[in-house]
Amino acid sequence: MELIGAYEKTEVRLETVFSGALDGQAVELKGAVHSLRELGGVCFVTLRLRDGVIQCVCPPERLPDGLTEECAAVVTGTVRAEPRAPGGRELETERIEILSRPAAPLPVPVSAWKLKLNLDTELSLRPVVLRSLRERSVFKIQEGFSRAFREYLTQEGFTEIHTPKIVHAGAEGGSNIFRLEYFGRKAFLAQSPQFYKQAMVGVFERVFEIAPVFRAEKHNTPRHLNEYTSMDFEMGYLDSFTDLMAMETGFLRYAMELLRTQYAAELERLEVALPDMERIPAVRFDEAKRLAAEKYGRPIRDPYDLEPEEEHNIGRYFKEEYGADFVFVTHYPAKKRPFYAMDDPADPKFTLSFDLLFRGMEVTTGGQRIHDYQTQVDKMLAKGMHPEEFSSYLMAHKHGLPPHGGLGIGLERLTAQLCGLDNVRRASLFPRDQTRLEP
Amino acid sequence: MELIGAYEKTEVRLETVFSGALDGQAVELKGAVHSLRELGGVCFVTLRLRDGVIQCVCPPERLPDGLTEECAAVVTGTVRAEPRAPGGRELETERIEILSRPAAPLPVPVSAWKLKLNLDTELSLRPVVLRSLRERSVFKIQEGFSRAFREYLTQEGFTEIHTPKIVHAGAEGGSNIFRLEYFGRKAFLAQSPQFYKQAMVGVFERVFEIAPVFRAEKHNTPRHLNEYTSMDFEMGYLDSFTDLMAMETGFLRYAMELLRTQYAAELERLEVALPDMERIPAVRFDEAKRLAAEKYGRPIRDPYDLEPEEEHNIGRYFKEEYGADFVFVTHYPAKKRPFYAMDDPADPKFTLSFDLLFRGMEVTTGGQRIHDYQTQVDKMLAKGMHPEEFSSYLMAHKHGLPPHGGLGIGLERLTAQLCGLDNVRRASLFPRDQTRLEP
Repeated sequence: MELIGAYEKTEVRLETVFSGALDGQAVELKGAVHSLRELGGVCFVTLRLRDGVIQCVCPPERLPDGLTEECAAVVTGTVRAEPRAPGGRELETERIEILSRPAAPLPVPVSAWKLKLNLDTELSLRPVVLRSLRERSVFKIQEGFSRAFREYLTQEGFTEIHTPKIVHAGAEGGSNIFRLEYFGRKAFLAQSPQFYKQAMVGVFERVFEIAPVFRAEKHNTPRHLNEYTSMDFEMGYLDSFTDLMAMETGFLRYAMELLRTQYAAELERLEVALPDMERIPAVRFDEAKRLAAEKYGRPIRDPYDLEPEEEHNIGRYFKEEYGADFVFVTHYPAKKRPFYAMDDPADPKFTLSFDLLFRGMEVTTGGQRIHDYQTQVDKMLAKGMHPEEFSSYLMAHKHGLPPHGGLGIGLERLTAQLCGLDNVRRASLFPRDQTRLEP
Repeated sequence: MELIGAYEKTEVRLETVFSGALDGQAVELKGAVHSLRELGGVCFVTLRLRDGVIQCVCPPERLPDGLTEECAAVVTGTVRAEPRAPGGRELETERIEILSRPAAPLPVPVSAWKLKLNLDTELSLRPVVLRSLRERSVFKIQEGFSRAFREYLTQEGFTEIHTPKIVHAGAEGGSNIFRLEYFGRKAFLAQSPQFYKQAMVGVFERVFEIAPVFRAEKHNTPRHLNEYTSMDFEMGYLDSFTDLMAMETGFLRYAMELLRTQYAAELERLEVALPDMERIPAVRFDEAKRLAAEKYGRPIRDPYDLEPEEEHNIGRYFKEEYGADFVFVTHYPAKKRPFYAMDDPADPKFTLSFDLLFRGMEVTTGGQRIHDYQTQVDKMLAKGMHPEEFSSYLMAHKHGLPPHGGLGIGLERLTAQLCGLDNVRRASLFPRDQTRLEP
């Protein structure tokens, strides 16, 4: 019998190396050979670690036999200042030990500054393409957003929940739902955690979840994924649906600050400018439509929904007129919002709901929900639905729910818009679309 | 146009009330009426907030018309010390305003100390049963585990990833996989993020994911769920597979400390004693089997796997002999481990793998993986598999992976074992089993 204590190994961090604190000292680094070249009788091995790359310099005779790019290796050597090296420090290499070797060379030069692959090639080769520093930076920034969401909401008294993805009924309606055979019964993949997070408001008041959602969308567009990561929250005891937008603004402000302080290298590598997050303009749906139509001379075709080009123009309008990267569009028509949306008592043709546009693309849908049982049942009936099929959902309303609401943020869209990516697929590690089931 | 700033409302926390800092002061609290009773001409309204309950006292004439349990309400009053009240403080009520009303009384008395419902009733009524303080405490503790997993691994340099749940092939083999129709093609629900997290070791070195996994298990047992939350990590540059167990020990120690400091009320409510987490014994599979068989006189029937009763006995053995709540069982037979498991070079009948038992139940499976391309291809062929069907998985190996390994922890099992629950379904908000698709 052996006794296992907690992990206590500590590796040298590149940040420490680049700070100069280890100049003249011997260190050991483990990483992958990112690039390998010889210049004037000296070998330059760029080692890729989880926190960056470092140049290791050595005479050719000290390279182990068969060292190639993408070998995993342990490099020992002495840190020294070298202004021409990335980060201003390099390793004067004493010894390189190979831990593992690839079986074949890379299909694309991942050590190049930009890869410029077409989308299909990139996605098909994702397991190796992501080894590019720029590519992986996108997903570090994505991590920053989900960390920020959790940290901020935890501070605000939210409880994290995990709700089922195999469900007996869709929450969002429509035909974009995946079907599944479940022990001889018909089941579906959850389009959102909507039903469950509302029920949990009755338990925890404030809840959040970061989890996959599934949409069998048939459009093949740069904005759609068939599986994406939804960051959802739901909160009780609203004074107004504006509370929801304020909570999202608080999250975004927190997120940008976290990215600025903890993800500076990734932002720099991707040349990302963080948006100003002090306040976010909120404008009514019909007003937003009118402003954009007037300024850009594009007639309004669908009075009930925003077309992608209208979203784009609304984003452009608020950027040009107010310097805003984000804009809340509020009071969507009841006709286009789901059965659980609360109508505006001032004009029930509209709902107490909103979308958040970020640089002209919707990244959030949210709103106040109906909390009163009878009101919800009546609205379902008015929409031709059968409340008895939703009895497990309505159980929470029946036995009391406070006024509440919430929202869902598409993590990939948020990431893509911040990083200036032209297709949301580029912000999903392994995107799913109509033709893509692997890798 | 309106400008939305960050959420700035702050509510009075019960912790502050119970500290005595607000004695004699007027406060406003929002919550649900947890219980309501009259005693000697005085009404006692117990208000349920997200952080606990507080007793509000008022004369009957000050109760608003129609106040019942599970009304959402705003209560204003003055805090005063009252040794007989829970928490030692109560609210001398000035005013109660009803925000919303239930349409029907609760089907079960959620304000009772223990509900003692049979499992089927409990699960069918989950949206309301969880309003019981004891019930919801289980899921606060669950939140503590996932928070700890993320916080600890983030400190250790891991990157959080999100991998697809709709996949083209199962990672764990066997028949327990859900099938799905995906735009006219056959697809599956992921049994684990195994393939993706291994590929991501080549990118980020260390990754983790907390996400649902799906197992079409046909057994109906107290230990199985058809959908559960898996906490996975995978790390590169292992010196030995012991590094994985050390990382898990570090996580568990961190988790217990987080629970002790941040979730004390929930632990107390559930009468949970935290296990000692200094070190965890590790014992070889065959040795563990032998020790338990000898001590409890139960013959070994299956030399390749642990039966649930054997797991139970091994847990009991290490508790009795060493006072240990956790035990790592190492070196499982190669025959019973998946194709990606690394065989022990000292004896290839066994693998460099382990399970973690917690109070006699497996809560983790992990191990070192094969990183060399040809070794992996050869092992697949030896198992009768077709490597060409796994080319997107093998892409990472082909182009170089460091020595690596990882593990998956069942969040519900970990929660159930800590809380002493008799069925893992009780540790899932909305469990999925063969007969249960709702709520």
